[in-house]
Amino acid sequence: MSDTPATPLLDTVATPHDLRKLDHKQLRQLADELRAETISAVGTTGGHLGSGLGVVELTTAIHYVFNTPDDRLVWDVGHQCYPHKILTGRRDRIRTLRQGGGLSGFTKRSESEYDPFGAAHSSTSISAALGFAIANKLTGAPGKAIAVIGDGSMSAGMAYEAMNNAEAAGNRLVVILNDNDMSIAPPVGGLSAYLARMVSSSEYLGLRSLASKLTAKLSRRVHKTARKAEEYTRGMVTGGTLFEELGFYYVGPIDGHNLDHLIPVLENVRDAEQGPVLVHVVTKKGKGYAPAEASADKYHGVQKFDVITGTQATAPPGPPSYQNVFGDALVREAATDDRIVAITAAMPSGTGVDRFAKAYPDRAFDVGIAEQHAVTFAAGLAAQGMRPFCAIYSTFLQRAYDQVVHDVAIQNLPVRFAIDRAGLVGADGATHAGSFDVTYLATLPNFVVMAAADEAELVHMTHTAVLHDSGPIAVRYPRGNGTGVALPEVPQALEIGKGRIVREGKKVAILSLGTRLAEALKAADALEAKGLSTTVADLRFVKPLDEALIRKLLTTHEVAVTIEEAAVGGLGAHVLTFASDAGLIDAGLKLRTMRLPDVFQDQDKPDAQYDTARLNAEHIVDTVLKALRHNSDAIAEGARA
Amino acid sequence: MSDTPATPLLDTVATPHDLRKLDHKQLRQLADELRAETISAVGTTGGHLGSGLGVVELTTAIHYVFNTPDDRLVWDVGHQCYPHKILTGRRDRIRTLRQGGGLSGFTKRSESEYDPFGAAHSSTSISAALGFAIANKLTGAPGKAIAVIGDGSMSAGMAYEAMNNAEAAGNRLVVILNDNDMSIAPPVGGLSAYLARMVSSSEYLGLRSLASKLTAKLSRRVHKTARKAEEYTRGMVTGGTLFEELGFYYVGPIDGHNLDHLIPVLENVRDAEQGPVLVHVVTKKGKGYAPAEASADKYHGVQKFDVITGTQATAPPGPPSYQNVFGDALVREAATDDRIVAITAAMPSGTGVDRFAKAYPDRAFDVGIAEQHAVTFAAGLAAQGMRPFCAIYSTFLQRAYDQVVHDVAIQNLPVRFAIDRAGLVGADGATHAGSFDVTYLATLPNFVVMAAADEAELVHMTHTAVLHDSGPIAVRYPRGNGTGVALPEVPQALEIGKGRIVREGKKVAILSLGTRLAEALKAADALEAKGLSTTVADLRFVKPLDEALIRKLLTTHEVAVTIEEAAVGGLGAHVLTFASDAGLIDAGLKLRTMRLPDVFQDQDKPDAQYDTARLNAEHIVDTVLKALRHNSDAIAEGARA
Repeated sequence: MSDTPATPLLDTVATPHDLRKLDHKQLRQLADELRAETISAVGTTGGHLGSGLGVVELTTAIHYVFNTPDDRLVWDVGHQCYPHKILTGRRDRIRTLRQGGGLSGFTKRSESEYDPFGAAHSSTSISAALGFAIANKLTGAPGKAIAVIGDGSMSAGMAYEAMNNAEAAGNRLVVILNDNDMSIAPPVGGLSAYLARMVSSSEYLGLRSLASKLTAKLSRRVHKTARKAEEYTRGMVTGGTLFEELGFYYVGPIDGHNLDHLIPVLENVRDAEQGPVLVHVVTKKGKGYAPAEASADKYHGVQKFDVITGTQATAPPGPPSYQNVFGDALVREAATDDRIVAITAAMPSGTGVDRFAKAYPDRAFDVGIAEQHAVTFAAGLAAQGMRPFCAIYSTFLQRAYDQVVHDVAIQNLPVRFAIDRAGLVGADGATHAGSFDVTYLATLPNFVVMAAADEAELVHMTHTAVLHDSGPIAVRYPRGNGTGVALPEVPQALEIGKGRIVREGKKVAILSLGTRLAEALKAADALEAKGLSTTVADLRFVKPLDEALIRKLLTTHEVAVTIEEAAVGGLGAHVLTFASDAGLIDAGLKLRTMRLPDVFQDQDKPDAQYDTARLNAEHIVDTVLKALRHNSDAIAEGARA
Repeated sequence: MSDTPATPLLDTVATPHDLRKLDHKQLRQLADELRAETISAVGTTGGHLGSGLGVVELTTAIHYVFNTPDDRLVWDVGHQCYPHKILTGRRDRIRTLRQGGGLSGFTKRSESEYDPFGAAHSSTSISAALGFAIANKLTGAPGKAIAVIGDGSMSAGMAYEAMNNAEAAGNRLVVILNDNDMSIAPPVGGLSAYLARMVSSSEYLGLRSLASKLTAKLSRRVHKTARKAEEYTRGMVTGGTLFEELGFYYVGPIDGHNLDHLIPVLENVRDAEQGPVLVHVVTKKGKGYAPAEASADKYHGVQKFDVITGTQATAPPGPPSYQNVFGDALVREAATDDRIVAITAAMPSGTGVDRFAKAYPDRAFDVGIAEQHAVTFAAGLAAQGMRPFCAIYSTFLQRAYDQVVHDVAIQNLPVRFAIDRAGLVGADGATHAGSFDVTYLATLPNFVVMAAADEAELVHMTHTAVLHDSGPIAVRYPRGNGTGVALPEVPQALEIGKGRIVREGKKVAILSLGTRLAEALKAADALEAKGLSTTVADLRFVKPLDEALIRKLLTTHEVAVTIEEAAVGGLGAHVLTFASDAGLIDAGLKLRTMRLPDVFQDQDKPDAQYDTARLNAEHIVDTVLKALRHNSDAIAEGARA
């Protein structure tokens, strides 16, 4: 949607080695061209824009000052890494970002030696960088490790755990706190308020005084006093007590768009004999692109857009997204139920909790990037008689697995989990795929685990979850838009552990969980066309299983297939386990389980991903036909193998 | 092993309501009697002693000052809750602690209304208490929520996440930091150093000045200045900046054994119009019992002991524990491999990493209660070419599940996981049972998952893990002692994904994973005695499965049984899935899966737990015989059901 900008200086920079040959007076121009190229590329592909624009100067300065890739640069989350990719040998593919077969939207080890550690989930960078630093310490290798982490990511416990352990790295570790006062949604919590106070209470120092203070602070030659005395002198640029209490030398806040400040500060930090150092850099998300700066979310994630106007491509009108169906359903439930509260971990719009928060601001809680806290907080609310809905993406709920087990399942507390982004998710790729929740939840005693086959089912399941006070209950549903079915006027309470027959047949049974139902019905049509009368069941629940229904389907059809948008250990495993427990396999049972393959799938269009995963209608038909053809010869053959 | 002490005053206190009728001058005597009773009880049962002794006065003071159970008291971890149990109506059962059918060694909702939230894993208390506080805020209920959390537990990320979100609770939330400078092992990290500096740099204030300062600080009437000005005046008792930066009013440090200080301070905090308040209380683990005070671990966890001498019952000499076998095996491997490093999350002795740390102090890392950081730190080390062993209990590894998925599995980094406490664990009960790791790891692409059948196998598997540089690998093994087999002189590298036949037979095949092998062999003897020739295989790997071996066993035996010390979704599910994928069930397959039942099992002796779980030899025999008897009639019958 845009011409490529003129980038004469950037054109000479294939890698950071070229960058480091430039005079530092040229860096301003380089950064400007890098920004233009980033805007142009994301205009073409869509993706994450605001974060990258905020770190154009920082990216330039880091690669200029540090000896990447030997110095290990770890970007937290990775939304901000597009300028980094442009500077590190991937400019030729930058317009394939997030496309099937193209560059990942995150850092990725397999893409480049300049990505020593992949990311996508938040707050991992300090731990990883500490691993690099300590490895170098042990082996005597010279390289440093630099973590760049946003203020939002600092709200996660693992960032704190890492900071609490960082001291051993000494000057091999540099943490750059990229404080843009906004990750995806506006920030929450005490830390955020603290950072805001630090920034607002200070003036940016002039270059001369900054450099002289740093030299005094970070050089061992000048500064040999004992630890105790140090505490009172270091951190003098403005404060940073919290970080210093955890063992860091604090430097900042620094204007992250002023290369004349960034370069000397980073040089000082690079050469410091003391450490670890935390550099507090203040940036503006969306910096340098007026439409982004003017937008509420700073163009965090965008569709393709027109670079001149900033106008984003609009998706054709279609069914509502699952997240909004959930949000609206919860708003409706809450109108007659004061006990309903909603919790999100920094994903208010992505989970639809923003809609709930608008209607019931006192009963909505955005806890920041803090899934562990979110779940146990919900457990506490449930223990005090509330009806909490914890709305967390499938893949991020992994962050709180122990809390799900220990605080919710063992205590059998009625926390409701609204699990968005279940199954494959498209452009965000493997790190965001919700592949494992069925397996990791259905193995837990006390849990009820549902999957919605369409958006109407999601409304019913939300209502079912509201009413389920006897223990934990989860409903999973995919990223993206619904199927277009009519939403129910009155939500129904589903019977726990009961599936439904969607289509009756005689020879083939397809047991579906979740939104593969549409493909199952397509497959049934195709099978009917081949003369194979096909039943399609929507099991609704993977736990508890509808054993009566499954027994009936398995014993009255010639072949049965389970299908789910989940990895091994989920529906298929539970159906097989039941069939084995019940002795249904003893006399022969043509039962196949269709599930996500045992690989981490890269980004692509969701339909293409499911095709690759062999979970579309044609693969169902294929699986059924193969099972029907299969006979005992194969077993004998296997035995000889 | 001891007479019960004379406790005339404690005998009059059945619940905190009785306690609150006492004159506060009587509390010293009550605390002394409570301490004596705690020592006597643990002398009889064994269990956690040092933690409880450290909070005798604190427990007394909290129940005296706050209106429990309406005010919600949440003990973090729960090791320290025995005096609390004595004071809250459970004294009659206190000598059943940690026994089958007796009181839990932790707080537990089903035991008492005075346990509003169960615990056992660390660092959940602030999140849960915040849930109680916010629920009361929303419903207008009057109760407060009090979390008591140790300094060690403060090293976990979720405590930080909770503190970062606490401000909304206002004065409904009180956090009591029980700073004994020691959780299970000596503390690590920047926070611990910070707390030590706070305590060492301050004098405990006299009662009069303490109370007057508190009144000035916490009463809105006296103190109506704006937030900004407040920051400079509050926290004046000595400091507490870190907590204040996260939004707390800080009070302390206070001598946690001086009731004359504790009572008025807690009364002030209870009546404060500002909040949330963090009270920093300094205690001594093992306080008031000379043998505990003199012991290095302060009698953290003890066997039954003689109260007069402190002499603990010694277990009869037996085979080495799995943890020590692992520790010694790793020491041996490291002698010839500089790249091996070991990481523990506050469990150096429990994982055997203490032995490694003694031999290679520079290569051992205790990161504190910080499993998330531990795993990603290990991933960073692996990415830089080291061979990290992450030694974490099965149930605690749940804390780092997302890091295992996102940082290790997706990146296919060769982090080695040594998973202790796999399976049922005895006296620690459901919260510590390692039931889910097989399921939650084997569902992940790229992972190799092994289980050791005995301590010799653990030595081989440790060696196998050292050599496995192509991706993540885990070995699980149980709590407790090995079987007594000879340890190998030279560890062997096992072929990845290959099991072994331990005993050859013809009619029955038992496919075992892990230490149920001994029971499988016993069952085979019993089956042979019934004329049923039995093969026993130790599969060693649940991922990748030894498909060739399994296919052969399933197709050449009349009946096959899998057995594992893990919940549904593990070995049995993977074997069934393979059998279904391969069409082996089409023509009939008598295959049963034996696994942990779908309940959270309470504490008991491990053998009794496995008997309850129906995973002993007799149950294997029973399962085999039932399967052999089962025929197609059952299927027809089921179809009619």
